[in-house]
Amino acid sequence: MMRTRPLKVALLGCGVVGSEVARIMTTHADDLAQRIGAPVELAGVAVRRPSKVREGIPADLVTTDATALVKRGDIDVVVEVIGGIEPARTLITTAFEHGASVVSANKALLAQDGAALHAAAEEHGRDLYYEAAVAGAIPLIRPLRESLAGDKVNRVLGIVNGTTNFILDKMDSTGAGYQEALDEATALGYAEADPTADVEGFDAAAKAAILAGIAFHTRVRLDDVYREGMTEVTAADFRSAKEMGCTIKLLAICERAADGGSVTARVHPAMIPLSHPLASVRGAYNAVFVESDAAGQLMFYGPGAGGSPTASAVLGDLVAVCRNRLNGATGPGESAYAALPVSPMGEVVTRYHISLDVADKPGVLAQVATVFAEHGVSIDTVRQQGKDGEASLVVVTHRASDASLSGTVEALRKLDTVRGVASIMRVEGE
Amino acid sequence: MMRTRPLKVALLGCGVVGSEVARIMTTHADDLAQRIGAPVELAGVAVRRPSKVREGIPADLVTTDATALVKRGDIDVVVEVIGGIEPARTLITTAFEHGASVVSANKALLAQDGAALHAAAEEHGRDLYYEAAVAGAIPLIRPLRESLAGDKVNRVLGIVNGTTNFILDKMDSTGAGYQEALDEATALGYAEADPTADVEGFDAAAKAAILAGIAFHTRVRLDDVYREGMTEVTAADFRSAKEMGCTIKLLAICERAADGGSVTARVHPAMIPLSHPLASVRGAYNAVFVESDAAGQLMFYGPGAGGSPTASAVLGDLVAVCRNRLNGATGPGESAYAALPVSPMGEVVTRYHISLDVADKPGVLAQVATVFAEHGVSIDTVRQQGKDGEASLVVVTHRASDASLSGTVEALRKLDTVRGVASIMRVEGE
Ligand SMILES: NC(=O)c1ccc[n+]([C@@H]2O[C@H](COP(=O)([O-])OP(=O)(O)OC[C@H]3O[C@@H](n4cnc5c(N)ncnc54)[C@H](OP(=O)(O)O)[C@@H]3O)[C@@H](O)[C@H]2O)c1
Ligand SMILES: NC(=O)c1ccc[n+]([C@@H]2O[C@H](COP(=O)([O-])OP(=O)(O)OC[C@H]3O[C@@H](n4cnc5c(N)ncnc54)[C@H](OP(=O)(O)O)[C@@H]3O)[C@@H](O)[C@H]2O)c1
Repeated sequence: MMRTRPLKVALLGCGVVGSEVARIMTTHADDLAQRIGAPVELAGVAVRRPSKVREGIPADLVTTDATALVKRGDIDVVVEVIGGIEPARTLITTAFEHGASVVSANKALLAQDGAALHAAAEEHGRDLYYEAAVAGAIPLIRPLRESLAGDKVNRVLGIVNGTTNFILDKMDSTGAGYQEALDEATALGYAEADPTADVEGFDAAAKAAILAGIAFHTRVRLDDVYREGMTEVTAADFRSAKEMGCTIKLLAICERAADGGSVTARVHPAMIPLSHPLASVRGAYNAVFVESDAAGQLMFYGPGAGGSPTASAVLGDLVAVCRNRLNGATGPGESAYAALPVSPMGEVVTRYHISLDVADKPGVLAQVATVFAEHGVSIDTVRQQGKDGEASLVVVTHRASDASLSGTVEALRKLDTVRGVASIMRVEGE
Repeated sequence: MMRTRPLKVALLGCGVVGSEVARIMTTHADDLAQRIGAPVELAGVAVRRPSKVREGIPADLVTTDATALVKRGDIDVVVEVIGGIEPARTLITTAFEHGASVVSANKALLAQDGAALHAAAEEHGRDLYYEAAVAGAIPLIRPLRESLAGDKVNRVLGIVNGTTNFILDKMDSTGAGYQEALDEATALGYAEADPTADVEGFDAAAKAAILAGIAFHTRVRLDDVYREGMTEVTAADFRSAKEMGCTIKLLAICERAADGGSVTARVHPAMIPLSHPLASVRGAYNAVFVESDAAGQLMFYGPGAGGSPTASAVLGDLVAVCRNRLNGATGPGESAYAALPVSPMGEVVTRYHISLDVADKPGVLAQVATVFAEHGVSIDTVRQQGKDGEASLVVVTHRASDASLSGTVEALRKLDTVRGVASIMRVEGE
């Protein structure tokens, strides 16, 4: 049964993602209508620069007044692909107030204000979907929220930023340093002119907050996510990683504590074994590993960004939201009933790879080992390398809390025989 | 808002999967209630042997009269994990007639009678969900049906049978022959006493039919799926594969023809390059690669079977179906509007790896090459190996139709100089 009156869609933003959403809505109109049960009509497109030529978009649909568009009152679904906090936040809230459901790709906004936006959606009995906000085309939010709704997720471990994965993969495969790899990423369009959000881990941290919230049925705010960028990763770190049978990835890690009573979320570079499925994720691809009680280990892999992959995720949400509307229903909203405390980074337990520059004289290893022991950090392996009075010690620890490790490192720095701490890298995925 | 009157669930079957479903329903009752918005209650459990001790299942819930259970009239959701065609089919149909929605893990039944069951669900305004029927715990049906609902899927390429992947992985890593690897799989519980359904590809073919149907919005019946088992794969084939930088997997492949006008579905062993993400899927794991217009290449990986992974998928469906019921709505039903013709195997286009035993004398290669040319099959590479008057020719072709290849092979067999066709293997995933 096909309804003939179309559902009206307002598109806010018509850039990299929005232009692809509009294109597919036009070229796949018949399929979308069949899958939804009613045709969908592009009712308006809000942009900043009205005079820009936009292929395939009728000029009379284009407006710079996004607010008026979402207030029209006849809009069924607002697709927000402007990005950033404002005006996106106000536009989405206004959309709910005027009866529309919302599909968004805006990780920054969702990570910061997800709870308030979900509350607004619920208050007005509308949907808020945002599959595209995490890992682009990869179905992740829907599987976590729906497919695993009968399971207990314990861990989410993911490569959720394509730019940094491209850079790290380059460093790994060519031996290049960070700057050289970044330059290549920029030249090829994988990194933006200002790469801060990516390389400093802000983008991944926003995604970690969203994923942790959904996985643990707990509100996790952006501020709850420990964040460390990957600008300090060196070619030497990759050499150390290789010696351990590892590579280095920038990971978003969301974990339930062993006792189940709290959760953590963090983003930082980490060594992972080459045998781990995430180790072979190349270039700008994304992949997310999920561990749950009953399902065990699952992995989701695909393009994490790009106009058309992201549009695929937006359109999947658009179809779902339109179906819900025709059904007079809404999909699953925010689920934060577990309300678990989010522990600080100090309570995270993992393994560490530490490179120390030390004096090349007898007794140094004993001194260093004593410091580890005093802080309750147990050593797995040590490797000593020395030449010309200079030496290095590479220590790999057993599992220890981040707080114990920090204490250890602080004490190591105070040793006369330790000239410097060359690098500290967490070891994950074992 | 939590409704206090529980939703009633009838569990049909309490074996490997059913017992795990019951266990999780009990141990995770509070979480399930929160996620659904109402408690769920196990209202009855139908089995064949009532006297068997079933841990955690109250004896008064157990019945051998599955029909009476689904006819009670107060059942909200029937979970069918008996398996096989009858009585499962009649029980599911009866469940719809008596107002219940159904969650099933029954690939055999869905592949054979999916259309009729969907029609029955729709007639009664009820849901039929079956995420667990394909690739166990891996969210696949929901992503295909919902996340990719705004996209156009062109290809599904998957390892969907854990038993055969375990056997092939063993052969690959140890050089063992088929029988030896099968024996080990049986001893470790990865293969059933009668492994026919797995090793002859029947199980994978059922999954291919289900996946193709959903991916292409077209009814694909089990009979439409070309099926070739993996019992003929030899250690020699693995050696050939290695020489080509490949491994061998039993693949389920669902494809849209290049012109978009038809689809194919098939199951057979195939060589795939070691660089392909499916090549590194080890042991009894499953993984499915999906290619679509906008999203590009996605992969879903995880445990394809086992009681608790499969129960995870069943419970995800149970939560969704219960939510729909509380909403007074139903989820997406069958989508077969595209109704594309399913082409026979002859029209499938791929590459081939052919080993021929030939006479070791001049002119043989020319003869063989002529036969390929006459059938329009273009050769990519040929390798000749000869000793003691015996020789072998290994030919790898460019893309050609299966019909052309069959014609070629038939003509080759008629050549005096060709003593035998040692193996023919398709090459996929390039
Ligand atoms: N690009 C990706 O690969 C990707 C992947 C995942 C998620 N996302 C998310 O998708 C969203 C959009 O990203 P994008 O890459 O498409 O951004 P973009 O290319 O910069 O496009 C932004 C669009 O918003 C319009 N816009 C900006 N301010 C506006 C305002 N005040 N009122 C109306 N329109 C306004 C712009 O208009 P003009 O065209 O006139 O400049 C432009 O069309 C972001 O939240 C981003 O995080 C993007
Ligand atoms: N096992 C897996 O890893 C897996 C993975 C994916 C999908 N599946 C699917 O899940 C379904 C169940 O598989 P399973 O491995 O759990 O099978 P199973 O261990 O053989 O269990 C079958 C259950 O059905 C009961 N049963 C059989 N005939 C019955 C009848 N006429 N009336 C009532 N109960 C009856 C049996 O009762 P008794 O206990 O008294 O014998 C048993 O409890 C199948 O469709 C299978 O394809 C299984």
